[in-house]
Amino acid sequence: MIQEKIHQTIAILKEKGVDLWLTFVRESDTVHDPSLDFILGTSVTWQSAFMISAKGETVALVGSLDETNIRSRGLYAEVIGYVESIKDPLLGVLKRLNPQKIAINYSLDSPLGDGLTHGMYELLMGYLSGTPFAEKIISADGIIGALRGRKSPAELDRIKAAIKLTLDMFSRVSGFIQPGRTEKEIAGFLKEELKKAGVTEAWDPDYCPSVFTGPESAGAHAGPTDRKVEGGHILNIDFGIKLNDYCSDLQRTWYILRDGESEPPAEVMKAFNGIRDAIERAAEALKPGVEGWMVDKLARDYLVSLGYEEYPHALGHQIGRFAHDGKGLLCPKWDRYGKLPFDKVEEGQVYTIEPRCTVKGYGVATIEEIVVVTGERCEFLSPPQTEIYVV
Amino acid sequence: MIQEKIHQTIAILKEKGVDLWLTFVRESDTVHDPSLDFILGTSVTWQSAFMISAKGETVALVGSLDETNIRSRGLYAEVIGYVESIKDPLLGVLKRLNPQKIAINYSLDSPLGDGLTHGMYELLMGYLSGTPFAEKIISADGIIGALRGRKSPAELDRIKAAIKLTLDMFSRVSGFIQPGRTEKEIAGFLKEELKKAGVTEAWDPDYCPSVFTGPESAGAHAGPTDRKVEGGHILNIDFGIKLNDYCSDLQRTWYILRDGESEPPAEVMKAFNGIRDAIERAAEALKPGVEGWMVDKLARDYLVSLGYEEYPHALGHQIGRFAHDGKGLLCPKWDRYGKLPFDKVEEGQVYTIEPRCTVKGYGVATIEEIVVVTGERCEFLSPPQTEIYVV
Repeated sequence: MIQEKIHQTIAILKEKGVDLWLTFVRESDTVHDPSLDFILGTSVTWQSAFMISAKGETVALVGSLDETNIRSRGLYAEVIGYVESIKDPLLGVLKRLNPQKIAINYSLDSPLGDGLTHGMYELLMGYLSGTPFAEKIISADGIIGALRGRKSPAELDRIKAAIKLTLDMFSRVSGFIQPGRTEKEIAGFLKEELKKAGVTEAWDPDYCPSVFTGPESAGAHAGPTDRKVEGGHILNIDFGIKLNDYCSDLQRTWYILRDGESEPPAEVMKAFNGIRDAIERAAEALKPGVEGWMVDKLARDYLVSLGYEEYPHALGHQIGRFAHDGKGLLCPKWDRYGKLPFDKVEEGQVYTIEPRCTVKGYGVATIEEIVVVTGERCEFLSPPQTEIYVV
Repeated sequence: MIQEKIHQTIAILKEKGVDLWLTFVRESDTVHDPSLDFILGTSVTWQSAFMISAKGETVALVGSLDETNIRSRGLYAEVIGYVESIKDPLLGVLKRLNPQKIAINYSLDSPLGDGLTHGMYELLMGYLSGTPFAEKIISADGIIGALRGRKSPAELDRIKAAIKLTLDMFSRVSGFIQPGRTEKEIAGFLKEELKKAGVTEAWDPDYCPSVFTGPESAGAHAGPTDRKVEGGHILNIDFGIKLNDYCSDLQRTWYILRDGESEPPAEVMKAFNGIRDAIERAAEALKPGVEGWMVDKLARDYLVSLGYEEYPHALGHQIGRFAHDGKGLLCPKWDRYGKLPFDKVEEGQVYTIEPRCTVKGYGVATIEEIVVVTGERCEFLSPPQTEIYVV
């Protein structure tokens, strides 16, 4: 799969008119540049440079003790080991490749395109200082965004497998949800499922899964509590797994009937159906060429038109090796998202769609689905939740 | 333990005359600043600032959806959530705290002090631009180095537990090593031990453990191969585990007798004893106040005086949450180590000592021990290997 992604990189470099992509790292087990997972798949100790050119040249420059390991991967046509300093061999390779643009891994907007630490940036610029290369540095965030976003068939298969297993787990936990159980007990049931399946959480184990029951719950990004499920609660679960290095990220919503109720109250149904329909509308608009904010705005405006507050987050994010992956985001034009809302949607990207409504006195209604962008539209990878689950 | 490390931080800030330490992160599950493990212990999604002052003020500024989770930790006296942009609340807090120096997480020399990405650095400097705070930025690497290096009793206990379990595993694998077994089989035995104990590798699972047998082996930082153990081989294993978030990192050396041999040949014994004695000499010199290069030089010069080539790496590194941890390093004054060789050894630091000798025609003799620096000297945390193990 890494070989496949390196080939894809070369095509992306050509498409974007960038000669050379330079990934500059050290001690990659500690502060880890996530681009390495696509172009190396192991770790290095000393300052190392991985260079891929639009012409298809591939050069790895590594500390001498890492040389055998890197060479054994067979990914780089040239593997050069050094002992005392990377500076001279690095300048030597750059002179030979003679790039007009050198893309490096920093980005103001995209966390995953921003794997180069500031100290490493300063070191690199020190090495290049006084050479023509210092003027040729650009951000690689477009390259990294494309590489992470445009999933290969093999990557897509892994995501589908993760989704399928997660939905199985959702269907089993559904039978476990009942009045008197706590958020922690319900989360514990899913933790046990993870253990049995031998897979890990897609994000911070402290709040994966998140379980929120009732009107007093945190509603997002918080761990499960001792709060008990009661009649009249909306309960939602945000859960994802990592299977074979690729993630799922899904949310489902339940309603717990009160004594005497035979169906959820009208305001709960209105919110749930609003969410469901907002997802439908967003999915219809999600296709190559649109900008992320447009899709977010559709869902956001629709829910506001129903009388709900704006949800305080993006409508959706990409998934991949991380639950939050890729560059483009389906998000509003808020400062904190920088230029990400203006990124164009591309074929092969996998997005979540996850609007939310707070229903006063009941809880938070959310659904999170996953779609892949195809040639002219998008397709659901998770069969959408169309009815609220009633307990 | 995090509360304990935050208290320690306040003392370190006072000692170093720095008003404020600012850790600036986003999507901390993906590109993870390792300082967060000491001051937070969970993850955040949006741009977030964790501020600790020499006066003991603690302020966390996080995206609104992360607020509940961060507040629930009880680590920060003030937790402030924001929705659209962190800029104004951040400048508000800085005005109130009014620091003269603001330490941020970048370092040219120390990978673990360099958790701030370049894009995040640019964002931060953009926010501070036009305010007096832009001129007050300094590197936090001294603070982070002290915080990671000076182990609390609880941290030391965890390292001791990891070492003990690793030595148990070494003693069991010793009975498994015999002619005809491959490096991969021997590594597989230790992988099985990890699984049984429910612990993980201390570094990249591809080469933890490393097993090297005979004169043709890679010798360091490479995965095990199908090479078979034979009479006349020196065999060494480099192995570490992570137990309760803290690591071990140890090496042991065996010699495989040839038919008719009753003990290792003289050149093998000379190298093994040379390594053992180099460790002894280095440990005698390792005490608070000496600079790392001095300790490295002692071992390095001793082995050169016996006729061996200089080992192509540092004599030792600190361990902690990572196998390679802390700032100060027992290393030569080579470019690639920057200013690290000149860092002074401090009480409470835990170092490996791991010189090596190549013995032509036999393999690589190495031992790696772990010591803790005490008031006036250092103490071995691993009972040293004093005799080569003979198979």
